Amino acid sequence: MKRILFLLISLAISTKGLTQGAADSLMIADIYKHSLTQALCYEDLRYLCKQIGHRLAGSPSADKAIAWGERTLVELGVDRVFRMPVEVPQWQRGTKEEASYTYRSEGMEHECFPSLTALGGSVGTPKAIEASIVEVKSLEELAVLGRAGIEGKIVFFNKGLDPMLINTGAAYGGAYPIRGKGPSEAARYGAVGCIIRSLTLGDDDYAHTGATQYNDSLARIPAAALSARASAELSRALKLDSALRFRLHLHCEAKPRRTQYNVIAEWKGSESPDQYITIGGHLDSWDIGEGAHDDGAGIVQSIQVMRTLKQLGYRPKCTIRVVLFINEEFGNDGGETYAAICKTEGLRHRAALESDGGGFTPRGFSCELNDTQFGRFTEWKPLLEPYGLHQFRRGGSGVDIRPLQDDVIGLFGLAVDTQRYFDYHHSGNDVFEQVNRRELELGSAAMASLIYLIDQCGFE
Amino acid sequence: MKRILFLLISLAISTKGLTQGAADSLMIADIYKHSLTQALCYEDLRYLCKQIGHRLAGSPSADKAIAWGERTLVELGVDRVFRMPVEVPQWQRGTKEEASYTYRSEGMEHECFPSLTALGGSVGTPKAIEASIVEVKSLEELAVLGRAGIEGKIVFFNKGLDPMLINTGAAYGGAYPIRGKGPSEAARYGAVGCIIRSLTLGDDDYAHTGATQYNDSLARIPAAALSARASAELSRALKLDSALRFRLHLHCEAKPRRTQYNVIAEWKGSESPDQYITIGGHLDSWDIGEGAHDDGAGIVQSIQVMRTLKQLGYRPKCTIRVVLFINEEFGNDGGETYAAICKTEGLRHRAALESDGGGFTPRGFSCELNDTQFGRFTEWKPLLEPYGLHQFRRGGSGVDIRPLQDDVIGLFGLAVDTQRYFDYHHSGNDVFEQVNRRELELGSAAMASLIYLIDQCGFE
Repeated sequence: MKRILFLLISLAISTKGLTQGAADSLMIADIYKHSLTQALCYEDLRYLCKQIGHRLAGSPSADKAIAWGERTLVELGVDRVFRMPVEVPQWQRGTKEEASYTYRSEGMEHECFPSLTALGGSVGTPKAIEASIVEVKSLEELAVLGRAGIEGKIVFFNKGLDPMLINTGAAYGGAYPIRGKGPSEAARYGAVGCIIRSLTLGDDDYAHTGATQYNDSLARIPAAALSARASAELSRALKLDSALRFRLHLHCEAKPRRTQYNVIAEWKGSESPDQYITIGGHLDSWDIGEGAHDDGAGIVQSIQVMRTLKQLGYRPKCTIRVVLFINEEFGNDGGETYAAICKTEGLRHRAALESDGGGFTPRGFSCELNDTQFGRFTEWKPLLEPYGLHQFRRGGSGVDIRPLQDDVIGLFGLAVDTQRYFDYHHSGNDVFEQVNRRELELGSAAMASLIYLIDQCGFE
Repeated sequence: MKRILFLLISLAISTKGLTQGAADSLMIADIYKHSLTQALCYEDLRYLCKQIGHRLAGSPSADKAIAWGERTLVELGVDRVFRMPVEVPQWQRGTKEEASYTYRSEGMEHECFPSLTALGGSVGTPKAIEASIVEVKSLEELAVLGRAGIEGKIVFFNKGLDPMLINTGAAYGGAYPIRGKGPSEAARYGAVGCIIRSLTLGDDDYAHTGATQYNDSLARIPAAALSARASAELSRALKLDSALRFRLHLHCEAKPRRTQYNVIAEWKGSESPDQYITIGGHLDSWDIGEGAHDDGAGIVQSIQVMRTLKQLGYRPKCTIRVVLFINEEFGNDGGETYAAICKTEGLRHRAALESDGGGFTPRGFSCELNDTQFGRFTEWKPLLEPYGLHQFRRGGSGVDIRPLQDDVIGLFGLAVDTQRYFDYHHSGNDVFEQVNRRELELGSAAMASLIYLIDQCGFE
């Protein structure tokens, strides 16, 4: 560590003048030391995942998470903690999710019960539906088959993420339209149901949920995701017995919208209190698993950033907010509401930073900045690279903070190692045990370091 | 992917001329595609870990691993596969590893059975030893206490890895002397036994073994590692009852050295067959867990490099060898023997590449190169960075290949994300399930890409 400090100080002397440069490198070292030896974020995550569990927006467990978030933020001892009302949807998975099919091969009948979970927002089936399957790889292939090939059937989108995209987020982005639009596009041609291969790079039996968006002008048909393995098995079965009938029974249903809350801690700036820096993640999660990586990690890291800076005796120049956004997963209501209220109140944001890529080893930051600002940002590279932060790339920040874009100088996202994220994402396997303590803490330290630099040096 | 290819081709055109640069970028894309969609290394690792299991040098399971390695290399269909005899030690853990102590607190006796494992090479205790404990943090503190403070006691080195070193390998390197020298240094002052806190950054109940090196001029005392949690508990107990007696019973023992084998596959070069490139890892592991990250991952990745290049129809210019080294863990006999025989035979090595940092996301390469060669090496950065390979740093390669250093132009090590490695290293938790398929495959692809570039472009 001494060697890193020496290097940082040397670099700082050569680029920024002794006083500020040395102070920056020492402060960042203090932030890392605190984060790696005294942070509470891992224990916070344990509580959030194990005592509260998953927390779908609109659900009673999300109410509990909001109360926990408020208590936890109050304990930081900053200037004020408040709730911001947000209207959120209510969708309930219900008690029944059943799927089965029987195929004939070698003169025998083989009965299968695939691992399946309803997509968020799906309508239920008052009684089970049963239909034959048409397997397609893309929305384009669906359109080619048209009504003649689709009507009365269940459409099975069996398309995995592209393994060649090294950033798995890009692979997810490429497959995302199938989940978002697939069910309505299937309905356009008369399908009675829609099942998709889970959007994962893993090869396991976890089904991955996530929101689907119905097109209001088309019939709403039940929609669900099969696990990667169940998808492969169904595809094999269809090759052996293309006439097999798939049975699907879902009890999910939408309920009226209700009020929940963004929870906000505010720490007044000492020099520029009218300039705001927002740090956050989303408190809601899907209703399977524990939302540990998505986005419990971002929540506890954001809280830890403020806790670390506070415990180090830091006095922020700008006003720093930690925002626990509600309902990123199902319409981004928390992010939209926050941005709208900031605009109404005329709040000027210097920056916003989100962590929503999972609690993995941090590799740097994505950002949305203009050329001049980006040049300024990359001047911080020598201060951050010794901590393994090497990515300083433009494009992307976070879903919750993006609605601020018109009223913010800089949007940032914590960029982490992406390889494992979609193994867990939106599945029953996104649990506390999959988060590594040190990786989580390194992420929080990276975030606190960036917030410190933004607060100290700012952007013009 | 198309965008990456376009970028690579553009870069290649600007730096190296159209033909070679474009060929390089296309070949690397092919290597990644093959590695991420058709590689067998994950299934190889499953077999090695689950059907053979741990494989301490000198053990019957290492014999099985050698036979498996030979079969697997033969299936690659390259020019020849052969065994190279290596003399290795035999040390057996035996059937009994027991530790216990009782401390008094609040007027009661508390009996504890800490998680413990003998250090590799430790002598056993014909019958249980029992002695009081002296806790120290360092070899220096031991020396200060001297014979007066140590004699007749069990020394407890309770020093964790430094969490502030972002590269956990550096943290391990800093703590390593305690495991290597601690027991003999304790014996120098009359200790009757030595226990150490496991060399891990994890906070769990796995004890981590690893070699200790006795000083031949001092008494050999039994030596073992406690889990991180058991170390913390023992330290707390000592604060409450400094007179507590620790009981240790180990059945481990050394047996005569015997012959095992490096297993080598050789693929003759088409243009410079007298120039060699060696790729490898170590086939032996410790005798707890399954040696999945250490170094099953490096073994199956090395095999996959040759399989990938072969299946892509590549014709190497140099002669490429995959070497499955035996006994890195306990004296580096395989590496030393290989280098000595290469020297005797006058083999000229263009390069050697090792993977021995676990099957985690690759981040680049470490290397041992002179200034000119390093400059040449970094010219490949634009070809490799799109695949997340950003570290091109001097210093370090691999324990098995380092003995080649006098007769090789370039030594390279696959540099991976280090954060989780020492959670598993040398423990019962280093099992197949801890390795992520995609991360393992990305490592193999990175290695194959570097080998291709070295073979094509070489170093002068």
